[in-house]
Amino acid sequence: MEQYSTEIDVLVSEVGPRDGLQSIDRVMPLEAKMAWVRAEAAAGVREIEVGSFVPASLLPQLADTAELVAYAKTIEGLTVAVLVPNLRGAQAAIAAGADKLTLPLSVSETHSLRNVRRTHAQMLDEARAIASLIREQPADRRPSFEGGLSTAFGCTIEGPIPDATLTRLAEGLMEAGCDEVGLSDTSGYANPVQVKRLIRLVRGVVGNEALSGIHLHNTRGLGLANALAALDMGLTTLDSSLGGIGGCPFAPGASGNIVTEDLVFMLEAMGLRTGIDLGALIAVHELVAKSLEGEPMYGFLPDAGIPLGYRNASTPEGHAASV
Amino acid sequence: MEQYSTEIDVLVSEVGPRDGLQSIDRVMPLEAKMAWVRAEAAAGVREIEVGSFVPASLLPQLADTAELVAYAKTIEGLTVAVLVPNLRGAQAAIAAGADKLTLPLSVSETHSLRNVRRTHAQMLDEARAIASLIREQPADRRPSFEGGLSTAFGCTIEGPIPDATLTRLAEGLMEAGCDEVGLSDTSGYANPVQVKRLIRLVRGVVGNEALSGIHLHNTRGLGLANALAALDMGLTTLDSSLGGIGGCPFAPGASGNIVTEDLVFMLEAMGLRTGIDLGALIAVHELVAKSLEGEPMYGFLPDAGIPLGYRNASTPEGHAASV
Repeated sequence: MEQYSTEIDVLVSEVGPRDGLQSIDRVMPLEAKMAWVRAEAAAGVREIEVGSFVPASLLPQLADTAELVAYAKTIEGLTVAVLVPNLRGAQAAIAAGADKLTLPLSVSETHSLRNVRRTHAQMLDEARAIASLIREQPADRRPSFEGGLSTAFGCTIEGPIPDATLTRLAEGLMEAGCDEVGLSDTSGYANPVQVKRLIRLVRGVVGNEALSGIHLHNTRGLGLANALAALDMGLTTLDSSLGGIGGCPFAPGASGNIVTEDLVFMLEAMGLRTGIDLGALIAVHELVAKSLEGEPMYGFLPDAGIPLGYRNASTPEGHAASV
Repeated sequence: MEQYSTEIDVLVSEVGPRDGLQSIDRVMPLEAKMAWVRAEAAAGVREIEVGSFVPASLLPQLADTAELVAYAKTIEGLTVAVLVPNLRGAQAAIAAGADKLTLPLSVSETHSLRNVRRTHAQMLDEARAIASLIREQPADRRPSFEGGLSTAFGCTIEGPIPDATLTRLAEGLMEAGCDEVGLSDTSGYANPVQVKRLIRLVRGVVGNEALSGIHLHNTRGLGLANALAALDMGLTTLDSSLGGIGGCPFAPGASGNIVTEDLVFMLEAMGLRTGIDLGALIAVHELVAKSLEGEPMYGFLPDAGIPLGYRNASTPEGHAASV
């Protein structure tokens, strides 16, 4: 296997096995998930959200998250992230050995009630309980803990979210014991000016260090433009989904994470190292497309191909790494 | 009809009737083209490239360009732009009364030979002859003249284009008598860093005033991110195509102009006035989709819809202007 650059400029956090698969009716077999995670890590992806610790009755597609976490933990250098909707989920995630837990908190309370049937106050209680649980773990098994500010850019039910609500909840999550917060455009409403404005706003209350990541959707085609705005503001972690699968099944009309392949192409073409080999990533697209035959896969780069004379910043000697 | 803001921040130049229709086999009837141009101008679009003065034997889809120019000239406040491949085309364009002529010059000489069967030297001769012809016109009938630097961001045949070739041709076009030059990502190879770099490079030789526009494709999904980079550099004219139809039929693998609807949504949501009403623009999308039934139309916004609580910068009193 080819040597990738050890240093990276931007962390691309793959959310397809969680956000993608939860939006698809069929259940991908554990073996296929393992092959996906293995191949994408081999292509250089350093963080993968492999699942969500929710009851199997709600999301049977993610029922094997504990097994997938255990497998993913055997891959050297990979940060294994999961979503947890509550304390019970966090207990299961810690037992499975996850490296990173994200608790989503919908800034729109209506969306929160529909998505996880909890008020803001209840969600902050969950955050506090999870933070306590994490502090009780031995230092070498203590995961990092992020509070995800969902529907931050507007909600399909409530519309625009007041700034004061966003800052109050960002502060609330940090006070509850989160290590950091993340902004999430669940509804695909964001625009580049708003991305910059909300990053500035939230950093104003939690500090620069506590906001490094953003979760963007491509619902209205602005995903990569919004990613560029986030990079301009100094954010260094960008969520995306292989083949753009996923979105939020509970937000009507919302669909389409930004596409990992297109995002990596943009970053690497701009000279920003992700540690990812674009040619190898396209091979992962083909692998996953095969195991999801019949499901729509998105992305422009996989169809259009790598430009003639293109150079990958992370693998300057060529894009066709052997993996 | 609702009052649009008179001042605009960004000029969206619609190229669909030219770049879009030349890529589609079927010939849209003149009546349908007139309805398209009329509706899009009524939605607030201020510049439309209505066709190309090429022999009807090469592009029968654009054979009625002179008639369409004459019709479009009856619409108040609309800049009627056309493409001309040579002096003969410019003569026809001036006779028809076009307001703006663009001569495309492929920075990749291989592409130039395939596209218009001319070398760089021959194209610069055409530019000089066209500029002379324009100078001979009475002041009130003198169109503006742009040199379009095609394949500036790389060519599907030649690959990367040396900086020196680009600057030499940009200078050559201005010396030949163009009023301005434009950058064109014919192959969909551009990335935001490169967009900024080439704008800086070309402005370095022609001056800031002589480069205000860019023609971007969405071939690899980076169209709007590249548009954002161009705006950051102070460019104020962005080409786009309704429904994203078109691209370049002579560049293998290249397809997909950036989508007018998505671009206008991005700009207006960012607070940049285009003078365009987004709701009315979506109605034009539906009109054109009907007259092109069966042809693929692109764009995320027309499918996803306008966000709840959205405010159009150009029509702050609401997005549903009556047109």
